[in-house]
Amino acid sequence: MSRLESMRRRLTAQIDGLNWAAKATAGLTGDVLEMGLGNGRTYDHLRERMPDRRIWVIDRQLRAHPDCIPPERDFLEGEADAMLTDLARRSARMVLTHYDFGIGVPEDDAAEALRLSALIAPVMVPGGLVVTQQAMTGFTQIPGPESIAQGRYFFYRAG
Amino acid sequence: MSRLESMRRRLTAQIDGLNWAAKATAGLTGDVLEMGLGNGRTYDHLRERMPDRRIWVIDRQLRAHPDCIPPERDFLEGEADAMLTDLARRSARMVLTHYDFGIGVPEDDAAEALRLSALIAPVMVPGGLVVTQQAMTGFTQIPGPESIAQGRYFFYRAG
Repeated sequence: MSRLESMRRRLTAQIDGLNWAAKATAGLTGDVLEMGLGNGRTYDHLRERMPDRRIWVIDRQLRAHPDCIPPERDFLEGEADAMLTDLARRSARMVLTHYDFGIGVPEDDAAEALRLSALIAPVMVPGGLVVTQQAMTGFTQIPGPESIAQGRYFFYRAG
Repeated sequence: MSRLESMRRRLTAQIDGLNWAAKATAGLTGDVLEMGLGNGRTYDHLRERMPDRRIWVIDRQLRAHPDCIPPERDFLEGEADAMLTDLARRSARMVLTHYDFGIGVPEDDAAEALRLSALIAPVMVPGGLVVTQQAMTGFTQIPGPESIAQGRYFFYRAG
């Protein structure tokens, strides 16, 4: 499989996974959290799928496409640890967190996701979902949509 | 349609278009030209699909993924005008050119593609194909694969 096909498969997994999670959390009350804005493509998808949810965004810097810039009040620019602590303090609670951090160094990315798990848990509503390409800890892993290859995405339910 | 879905549609059009063109030029003798290496995803796809073709690559700079770096002798780093003239002088002839230049400024990108058309023509074998997201001139436009939405990609046959 070429890197072009691999990229398409990754986008398909993102689309299917986020659509599935949006539907699965439709009955819950709360906000959405996008960790890692990047170019803003998945943010754009989340806001299109869940137009009535407030979508918080955490990133170290704003470098999204001009059409995908979150409202200023929802964009938390800085280190994730501080921003998650801030969200918890403000009593913001998420029905869905999409975790998309990573610099492409497998060990570092894995360690960061495990470390941040403990800070994500307090901002989740009970039964809320975490969708991530990195393994997390402290949540209940659940199967996602059947269309996504095993191990490509992880789906977790908050306790 | 979200930007995430739009990106997936673009990748699908690239995959379908390049696969179609590779098959359509299978009976011709010559090389392949990738104009615009970028991260190297389409280059990776081309070399996977056409392992027996020499694939020339033109770009202003090498910034591809480490797994997608062309052999040094096939990478022409510099301005396209000079590199195309160089290819013509060296009698390199292409059965397929994939044109992927563009900086995202529609008028500039369109003008550049039209200007470079006249320099691409001399390096094509008769009946060779140009696959491009920008309109070209001096070639015969042909319909591509049915799966690609009208106007998303252009397919041209060299005279």
